Amino acid sequence: MTGTKKNIMLTPGPTPLPPEVLAALSRPILHHRTEAFGEIFQFVLDAMRRVYMTKNRVLMASASGTGAMESAVVNLLSPGDEALVYSTGAFGDRFAAILKAHGLSPTVISEEWGHAAKADKLAAALKQHQKTKAVFLQQTDTSTGVLNDIKALAAAVRANSDAIVVVDAVSSLAAEEFHMDDWGVDVALTASQKGLMNAPGLAFAAISERAWTLVQSARLPKFYFDWKTYDKSLKARETPYTPAVAMVAAQAEALKLIEKISLKGMWKRTAVLADYTRAWARKNGLELFATDPAHILTGVRLPDGVDGSSMLAEILREEGISIADGQLNLKGKIIRIAHMGYISKPDLDAGFAALEKRLAKVQAA
Amino acid sequence: MTGTKKNIMLTPGPTPLPPEVLAALSRPILHHRTEAFGEIFQFVLDAMRRVYMTKNRVLMASASGTGAMESAVVNLLSPGDEALVYSTGAFGDRFAAILKAHGLSPTVISEEWGHAAKADKLAAALKQHQKTKAVFLQQTDTSTGVLNDIKALAAAVRANSDAIVVVDAVSSLAAEEFHMDDWGVDVALTASQKGLMNAPGLAFAAISERAWTLVQSARLPKFYFDWKTYDKSLKARETPYTPAVAMVAAQAEALKLIEKISLKGMWKRTAVLADYTRAWARKNGLELFATDPAHILTGVRLPDGVDGSSMLAEILREEGISIADGQLNLKGKIIRIAHMGYISKPDLDAGFAALEKRLAKVQAA
Repeated sequence: MTGTKKNIMLTPGPTPLPPEVLAALSRPILHHRTEAFGEIFQFVLDAMRRVYMTKNRVLMASASGTGAMESAVVNLLSPGDEALVYSTGAFGDRFAAILKAHGLSPTVISEEWGHAAKADKLAAALKQHQKTKAVFLQQTDTSTGVLNDIKALAAAVRANSDAIVVVDAVSSLAAEEFHMDDWGVDVALTASQKGLMNAPGLAFAAISERAWTLVQSARLPKFYFDWKTYDKSLKARETPYTPAVAMVAAQAEALKLIEKISLKGMWKRTAVLADYTRAWARKNGLELFATDPAHILTGVRLPDGVDGSSMLAEILREEGISIADGQLNLKGKIIRIAHMGYISKPDLDAGFAALEKRLAKVQAA
Repeated sequence: MTGTKKNIMLTPGPTPLPPEVLAALSRPILHHRTEAFGEIFQFVLDAMRRVYMTKNRVLMASASGTGAMESAVVNLLSPGDEALVYSTGAFGDRFAAILKAHGLSPTVISEEWGHAAKADKLAAALKQHQKTKAVFLQQTDTSTGVLNDIKALAAAVRANSDAIVVVDAVSSLAAEEFHMDDWGVDVALTASQKGLMNAPGLAFAAISERAWTLVQSARLPKFYFDWKTYDKSLKARETPYTPAVAMVAAQAEALKLIEKISLKGMWKRTAVLADYTRAWARKNGLELFATDPAHILTGVRLPDGVDGSSMLAEILREEGISIADGQLNLKGKIIRIAHMGYISKPDLDAGFAALEKRLAKVQAA
């Protein structure tokens, strides 16, 4: 940020913001119980329905994506309920942790990091656990850059169970192809700072009528995240508690940009950047981490002997380019290059140049 | 916002923002796990300690003030615990609602709206309920503009009970005199959009060591609002979940302004505007609502026959000035004029002129 350094973010949220969105963030604040704010808020919810590809109700709270994940757990389930988590990374594990924090004992099935969830394995697990009330899935997990086939997984749930299908689309929505209604997804969660091209601070949930039946009887304790309270405020085009009004105004601008580019255009843009990054990795003899890679993020294994953490710290310090390190046991071993939202080819080129320079030094040593 | 209309907010949050804060909101986004963000975040927490007048730890989450209130409940208490709420308005009632949502049965004592909590009444209630683990108070309640004497109330708790003193300072911090440590407050909650002169979206909690002992054993379920998780991230100058980074950058600017004016200067500024508003009300023959009025907000009774709701709607529509209506059974009967944060005398003058014009019309009719 200082001197002549770039300020480039290749991180999987927060992501860089388009100038129109930054400008909206700094417009004079609107009060949240006014006609003017109501119009912006209504536009955001309607546009979000188009991004989710759904006719379902969409609710918004001021929180991070983890808040959205917890809201699904506490609004769908009651003490003693059975739930199933199919984990393919750190965020799948987080769903399990949230369920356990609320006193539930979820069945957790998982794949090795980098491998996608398998529909037949999910079907088999549901046959064993016939009382499962809700299944928790991730479309993409930014810890590894894996893509799960939500269409196939949701179909497997529908064919074998009455369970509600909950999808964490926090890192994928507006960036990966997603059809909430056509695919039979009941609850889809997201946050503002990834494919939605806004700053972090807003969480969204789209909820099917089938899921709403569960919401009405769910008894896990909640207050701030109680969806029924948010639903009641929708008529007045309001939220029950003071929303992050500046973020809502910025979200409206970002959604207008998404509609200008078109949703398909956004999906394509992410795919093009992913292809471009994979080609760069191949050219440089770097192995992709995920066996089933997403478009939103490419995880790249570093050669043995390269300390990724200190290399990325140096790139940020010297060049002002943020690239994400591996998480947990992958720290220092992989790098994660994001492609969602407003991230562009020139951003990637700058990141690639910075990486190549340092990898060449290590390999020469 | 359109044409030549003003955009003046006399509402008790969101409040208008200083230009420096608006500018910070639209600076390029920083990744939250970087040195640069860590420095800003650390400054915010340190400056918040100075605003709270405390040496205690301060935690921050992305949420509204209600999220901060719920976080205190779930982090301090366990199933079956006894809690006491002293309600002097809508936000006091909200504490009771949060406690009940989490399966607790709080003792609720209250005053008629507009009247302050009484230390001797609190002492008597605590003598009756000796197992009380936590007492929940409001410094000011924006539903009425009442000010509670937290120094006296906290002293009454300390003299009669081992209960933790929790204060909702959401609408008062940085605007009303507050001395967390000197007054013996254990937990003080606030949010970004009032005295702190930032947009809504950040929630803060300051927590004493005495309260932290309770935090370590509290068993109410929680995840997103689990203070222990936020506390663990402090060492790395991070939050556990992606914070609202733009709002944090803006909060840093607002806190710099507060330090420039000085905390005492901020308290005085609010008091001067409150005096000015009370004088205006007297001059116009309007009765103040609160018997024990706060500085942050003046509640003014409207003359019989005036429909406040439609008058305020007209003022907003025709002049672009937001003034808050009464809440619940006071809707249409009182108006609430805020004084905290960046609200200025010229803002008040514009509001007064708009009100006088319409009140004169009604009285002439």
